[in-house]
Amino acid sequence: MTYAPEPVAHARPQHRLTLGVSIVGAGASARAWNWPGTKWNRFAHWEYYKRSAEIARSGVLDAIFVSDHPALQRDAGRGPSHLFDPIVLFSAIAGAVLDIGFVLTASTSYNSPYNLARRLASLDTISGGRLIFNAVANFNPDIAANFGADGLPDREQRYRKADEFLQVVKELWLSWDAPEGLAPDGPLWDETTARAINHHGEFFDVRGPLNVPIGPQGHPVISQAGASPQGIDFAGKHAEIVYAALLSKEAAFQFKGQLESAARAHGRAPDSIRLFPGASVFVGDTHEEALRRHEVFSGVDSEEGLIASFLRQQRAASPGFPEHIDPDKPLRPEWFVPREGQQRPIGFTKALCDLVELEGPTTRQIIRRTGAAGGHRLVAGTPREVAGALIDWWAAGAVSGFNVHLPLLHEDLERFVRQVVPILQAEGVFPKEYDAPTIRGRFGLPDPRTALGAVPAPAADRGRLTTAAATSSPPSPERP
Amino acid sequence: MTYAPEPVAHARPQHRLTLGVSIVGAGASARAWNWPGTKWNRFAHWEYYKRSAEIARSGVLDAIFVSDHPALQRDAGRGPSHLFDPIVLFSAIAGAVLDIGFVLTASTSYNSPYNLARRLASLDTISGGRLIFNAVANFNPDIAANFGADGLPDREQRYRKADEFLQVVKELWLSWDAPEGLAPDGPLWDETTARAINHHGEFFDVRGPLNVPIGPQGHPVISQAGASPQGIDFAGKHAEIVYAALLSKEAAFQFKGQLESAARAHGRAPDSIRLFPGASVFVGDTHEEALRRHEVFSGVDSEEGLIASFLRQQRAASPGFPEHIDPDKPLRPEWFVPREGQQRPIGFTKALCDLVELEGPTTRQIIRRTGAAGGHRLVAGTPREVAGALIDWWAAGAVSGFNVHLPLLHEDLERFVRQVVPILQAEGVFPKEYDAPTIRGRFGLPDPRTALGAVPAPAADRGRLTTAAATSSPPSPERP
Repeated sequence: MTYAPEPVAHARPQHRLTLGVSIVGAGASARAWNWPGTKWNRFAHWEYYKRSAEIARSGVLDAIFVSDHPALQRDAGRGPSHLFDPIVLFSAIAGAVLDIGFVLTASTSYNSPYNLARRLASLDTISGGRLIFNAVANFNPDIAANFGADGLPDREQRYRKADEFLQVVKELWLSWDAPEGLAPDGPLWDETTARAINHHGEFFDVRGPLNVPIGPQGHPVISQAGASPQGIDFAGKHAEIVYAALLSKEAAFQFKGQLESAARAHGRAPDSIRLFPGASVFVGDTHEEALRRHEVFSGVDSEEGLIASFLRQQRAASPGFPEHIDPDKPLRPEWFVPREGQQRPIGFTKALCDLVELEGPTTRQIIRRTGAAGGHRLVAGTPREVAGALIDWWAAGAVSGFNVHLPLLHEDLERFVRQVVPILQAEGVFPKEYDAPTIRGRFGLPDPRTALGAVPAPAADRGRLTTAAATSSPPSPERP
Repeated sequence: MTYAPEPVAHARPQHRLTLGVSIVGAGASARAWNWPGTKWNRFAHWEYYKRSAEIARSGVLDAIFVSDHPALQRDAGRGPSHLFDPIVLFSAIAGAVLDIGFVLTASTSYNSPYNLARRLASLDTISGGRLIFNAVANFNPDIAANFGADGLPDREQRYRKADEFLQVVKELWLSWDAPEGLAPDGPLWDETTARAINHHGEFFDVRGPLNVPIGPQGHPVISQAGASPQGIDFAGKHAEIVYAALLSKEAAFQFKGQLESAARAHGRAPDSIRLFPGASVFVGDTHEEALRRHEVFSGVDSEEGLIASFLRQQRAASPGFPEHIDPDKPLRPEWFVPREGQQRPIGFTKALCDLVELEGPTTRQIIRRTGAAGGHRLVAGTPREVAGALIDWWAAGAVSGFNVHLPLLHEDLERFVRQVVPILQAEGVFPKEYDAPTIRGRFGLPDPRTALGAVPAPAADRGRLTTAAATSSPPSPERP
């Protein structure tokens, strides 16, 4: 099933800017792990992750993000990116660091719904409603080999399983009313306050109820990142936040329109999904210095190096990519075709293709819009330029905010928090202190109990948009 | 397979006394949840568990313990005992409270070995080596119904699966050498430092390696609690700590002998398992006051009430228990026969039977040795009497220490820590501050890498026995 985009008004944003930061590995750059002056094996030490959370909190960021890959990654040269299990890592951080939220990636293919529902509900309650569950339907054969799977099911079946998984998990999350108010005279719970779900489906049989009561934000916020037609349909049905690779504002509007269309098809309000794309941020004292940092962290020393790297990687990734290309002539969309069975998410290939189709950049231009292998939107510049580029898409109403990827943790996160965030705060688009305890409050998402006619979250717990924020214009336009 | 006990020398203990405390629910008493003066719904609040950990740490206790039951418990009147998932709960506590160790119960029937190995390795590393994995082969149909199981496999098959599970998990835990020393010139890891395990068995196919490196104590310490012949065989093969219900010192020696026999049968040193039974502790300012507390928390008001309750519960539990009994005549072992398919662990029934066989108590005597439904060894008395009773079994060389169950958390834990622990410390049998960062250090257990010819843990990291402790005699004998 594919969804045509709804026409989306290029209007004012309805909620304040939201910001997350990826704390995967030693940073987004493959060169980060043994960067001069850093402790090379810091990725294996808990204090390193805890410190990332503390820096993020000092910048009032809404959440820290980890992707996941439950297998040792084959490319031993990149620096390992997925060691500690995200449930354990974020639970430990929840015990140590206040306020910061968590985007927790977990597999709907290799967990049982009861266990995962219980673990996520436990963390959401313990953290006071700071959890986003980023559901992924894994498709990597290296992962499958650790879970005894005989070959990989096709995408259709993986998403059918993910759909049933989410259905079960959401029912479990609302199955036991929180024990509040006066002590009951009789037993602590009965069939009216703790309800079996008696699910019998294609993949799962689960009786319930869950043995964790309904948490402070109803249930964890659900996010999703798949950009395939099945992924978008899944998002329309279940997602409250969608994480994506989007390289142009117009592509963001188109994708947002598709999500609204998918949501409507599943009987949900079209504005019930927050679009929260990645942004790969390089900050410099000058614009030129930021570009140099982009080059160096990409493993090259010049713009020509970036071009050569881009062409090499695209040739490897796409069967239709030509051997020789003039870097100053426009690229063509038909050159960006996913390789059959590629390990890389489809979204990254699609993002490049959309950018080329919408804006027709040359190779020299495109290497300042994303990484050499594709990836997230590149935002390189002075603190003011970076702030402007982030505000631009948000102020136009295209996105809720950005999940920021930085080349080198902790150094670049410190810099982002000290130099970029204060500009966003001064512009009135980002809070100076946490404005809501829960993720639902910060992203302006409704409590899922509202749909059941039960108690909604208090109105005070919603992300408020200041007048300044609603009318702000970006301090400087995005540089192409 | 059953193991005859080895003859065990009634000798001096080889390691210092170890102590844990159960922090399940609101306390071990069914009446704890709505005890006057307590916040009745505290079991649903994270701060409550964190505070338990802090009190335990203030008493230098080695570990806090949670059993588990991944289903809402049917008996809604008892107060709920297993809400937050133990992995999440202990990870959050690890982030918030230093030093305290964790006995984490998790199912070998309803987890996948790769996920659980990774989660436990993550927590062990993040906590600095404070983890004990208490492996259980669940047998409860309420749990099975949450995991889509068609009926329950028999005990034989559950233990076969548990055995294979542990085998896989232990191989995974030692599959990736910790990144230490100088930064490698080449890739971060290769086939010699991160080794696939390529396991193909009856229940699991797992390639590995694990994506978490070897942790600070090699791998988490493995504990086990099953008292059936299959459970003892499993312990002999895998367990480093065995948790048990033992109601007499002689029964403890016999059980220890069985464990040594089982260990030897699996090619392990006979002294490689620490016996760590439960103790149900009631402290009073006077001996009489402690007995009154025992009665009140048992839901009765007198010794006669305890006797009536004991007889009622034994009649319900055992098909051969007589209708009328003189409370001052000795009980007979043949009256304590497990009911076919009973929900209660076999160990509790066996413990009663052993006590009756070994000491021939009357009903009036037995109700001061354990709970009305059976359960753990009852230790009721003044702080000095309680300390003496704990030291007695340890000093004789029967046990490593005790996992203490207290009727009312936090009140009784505070009291235990303030009144009993200082006596143990003054007697020189228990440390005044943490004497080793890891559980292996505290329990005197070897590093599992030693067996592979790799780096052993530093000798300094072992629980040392002071001269005073080794020669101490209990301050007062155990009261029968």
